[in-house]
Amino acid sequence: MDFFNVVSVEEGRRMMLEVFKDYRFDLEEISIFEGTDRVLAEDIIAKENVPGFNRSTVDGYAVKSSDTHGASESIPSFLTLLGEVRMGEKADIKISNGEAVYVPTGGMIPEGADAVIMIEYAEKLDDSTLMVYRPVSVGENVTLKGDDIKSDEKAIVRGKKLSPQDIGVLAALGVSKLKVFKKPRFFIISTGDEIIDIDEEMTIGKVRDINSYTLYSLITKQGGQVTGRAIVKDNFELLRDCVEKALDISDIVIISGGSSVGTRDYTSKVINSFNGKGVFIHGVSIKPGKPTIIGEGKGKAIFGLPGHPVSSMIIFKVFVEYFIKKKLGMNESIKKTTAIIDFNFPSSPGKETYQMVNIVEREGKTYAVPAFGKSGMITLLSKSDGYIVLKPHEEGISKGEIREVYFL
Amino acid sequence: MDFFNVVSVEEGRRMMLEVFKDYRFDLEEISIFEGTDRVLAEDIIAKENVPGFNRSTVDGYAVKSSDTHGASESIPSFLTLLGEVRMGEKADIKISNGEAVYVPTGGMIPEGADAVIMIEYAEKLDDSTLMVYRPVSVGENVTLKGDDIKSDEKAIVRGKKLSPQDIGVLAALGVSKLKVFKKPRFFIISTGDEIIDIDEEMTIGKVRDINSYTLYSLITKQGGQVTGRAIVKDNFELLRDCVEKALDISDIVIISGGSSVGTRDYTSKVINSFNGKGVFIHGVSIKPGKPTIIGEGKGKAIFGLPGHPVSSMIIFKVFVEYFIKKKLGMNESIKKTTAIIDFNFPSSPGKETYQMVNIVEREGKTYAVPAFGKSGMITLLSKSDGYIVLKPHEEGISKGEIREVYFL
Repeated sequence: MDFFNVVSVEEGRRMMLEVFKDYRFDLEEISIFEGTDRVLAEDIIAKENVPGFNRSTVDGYAVKSSDTHGASESIPSFLTLLGEVRMGEKADIKISNGEAVYVPTGGMIPEGADAVIMIEYAEKLDDSTLMVYRPVSVGENVTLKGDDIKSDEKAIVRGKKLSPQDIGVLAALGVSKLKVFKKPRFFIISTGDEIIDIDEEMTIGKVRDINSYTLYSLITKQGGQVTGRAIVKDNFELLRDCVEKALDISDIVIISGGSSVGTRDYTSKVINSFNGKGVFIHGVSIKPGKPTIIGEGKGKAIFGLPGHPVSSMIIFKVFVEYFIKKKLGMNESIKKTTAIIDFNFPSSPGKETYQMVNIVEREGKTYAVPAFGKSGMITLLSKSDGYIVLKPHEEGISKGEIREVYFL
Repeated sequence: MDFFNVVSVEEGRRMMLEVFKDYRFDLEEISIFEGTDRVLAEDIIAKENVPGFNRSTVDGYAVKSSDTHGASESIPSFLTLLGEVRMGEKADIKISNGEAVYVPTGGMIPEGADAVIMIEYAEKLDDSTLMVYRPVSVGENVTLKGDDIKSDEKAIVRGKKLSPQDIGVLAALGVSKLKVFKKPRFFIISTGDEIIDIDEEMTIGKVRDINSYTLYSLITKQGGQVTGRAIVKDNFELLRDCVEKALDISDIVIISGGSSVGTRDYTSKVINSFNGKGVFIHGVSIKPGKPTIIGEGKGKAIFGLPGHPVSSMIIFKVFVEYFIKKKLGMNESIKKTTAIIDFNFPSSPGKETYQMVNIVEREGKTYAVPAFGKSGMITLLSKSDGYIVLKPHEEGISKGEIREVYFL
């Protein structure tokens, strides 16, 4: 076996991006209805102004604002009412000094007008005479053409994971087809002689496969797709066959380690057997998750994650999610909050340390309380709201300190 | 038109739950692979212990801890090595005083043993003799049967929106089929003479339908499904026909109002035309979103949302999401953070006020800066990270105050 130095999280991430610097995820064109949470692969340049014309934001009368100067309850301005603009139609009336036109909310402001006076502050004397009781200033109650989005403006940038709000922007611009990154394809392999699948009969000595289900869920939730999964015994040939098939139908292969040392050795040997760069990270100074393996085979990324559910989920977030986000140029912000740490938490010198926590509200303050437990426990994970991170140089956290909590 | 008092958000929510107190969402059985983000409709009671046997958490030797008392580098304990437990197999050896058995990480602890000493602190003299250099205490390096989940324990409660971690718990328990709530079915109608659809040619006076796309995205993202959408002109008969069809194929009908007063009147009249309870909320003391309408027709909920994108999204969150969550018995926590408010924000007396904000980090502190703009603007929404809420009795927010920000 090769000798590897344990690398830091930062160093590991850098190496990973370097090895896969030429790897590209495919693109596809989809309908806007499938766009939610997909990652945009092109900048969206507005081809229209939004709105496309000057609109009224109230029900009222379009006027030249100068005609209303000095208007009051006691001394109203008198204007000639020319008619009305109908909703959804072009205003083909032109306003001159001393004239007004009724415009509904969202209706078009006629040429010549520069403001709208709300109906509450005006009164029709007869069909052609309007009294105005208040002055309006230039632009009042008007949304100008292009106020929301200007034609030729970059409305959404490549790499954006599309939110419902972004979908709204696309709709406003008439963009019904989008170029997005194809969902990254994952193949998940669980290894270990003790692992049985969900529908198998439980016998003493066996444990059910947890990680491939947790990872399956995490991958689909984060916008990836799972092209296959398998449970493989601790056997070089069986594992190699499975990984070889997996590499052909996926972008990323995840091998979730059985918990024994033997399994880890097989994983490395298999990754090294594809005449590529093989394993280039074997051990990371992170807690939990030290026995992480990252390698390359047939041009694809292969991650060997620890067997414990908590560790495998953390390594997935720290390395796999990071990899996808960087390769797709995503600029998604990570959801987090700040909380008062409600326990003394020792550091593990030289290691980046992740601790699962629950967020608890007490007397109007937000506390992070530890979700302690053995790292193999799945219930520990399911009861956590998020995690805190201690950088390698930090000396630990004292009770009462305020820290960032990242949501799971 | 009937006369309605504007109701508070709390009162409106109470009325809504009262009117629909007998409404039930259907259930369905799905595979665990489709379970992510679905809402559980049954309690999950563990039928197995997890783990199903006492397991070692390290590679080491299973021993009686009392045999190691006083062991040290200089005075090791000598134990008789009986052999090894193989991964995934039942340990059929029994340990008596003075005996030890090798157990890999995750392997079964044999009967008689109560602790495991790590391989680092022991040394084999020959095939049957082990020297132990450290004492271990009872239970050290052992996960007991049922430590993670006990048989008959309630592992996940009804109403839980399933996270990847929950999926892991289900996998651990061998639960491959789940009873969940069917995805609530929505029909979205956009009304207004000025509204055109995404692929229609833009002409002066028209605006593209934004809300039905934003709502479509929001609904699918939150776990609902959209069974249909339509754009309808400001016409009683057309709107009534559309709502009637919509009620037949959905649980909830959303009418996103054109912005004119006329449209709002049609909406009320249509909802009242189904010989049900009709409109029971017509106006809410909320800003933005006052002209919200909530009614009942053919036993289903009908929401009339304001036409402005920001308002319609807020009302969707405040009423529609709330309705679904209550009816499904969901106990999902809302993702939020705390931030220093970086602006003076006046209250609207008697109204619950929602303000979109961006979250900005400066010198290690988290600030909420306002995303001000006219409420019709979709870009305003797409640039916001979340929102703050001012309760009706509050006097406004002063710059520098710390408040909760809810993520969008």
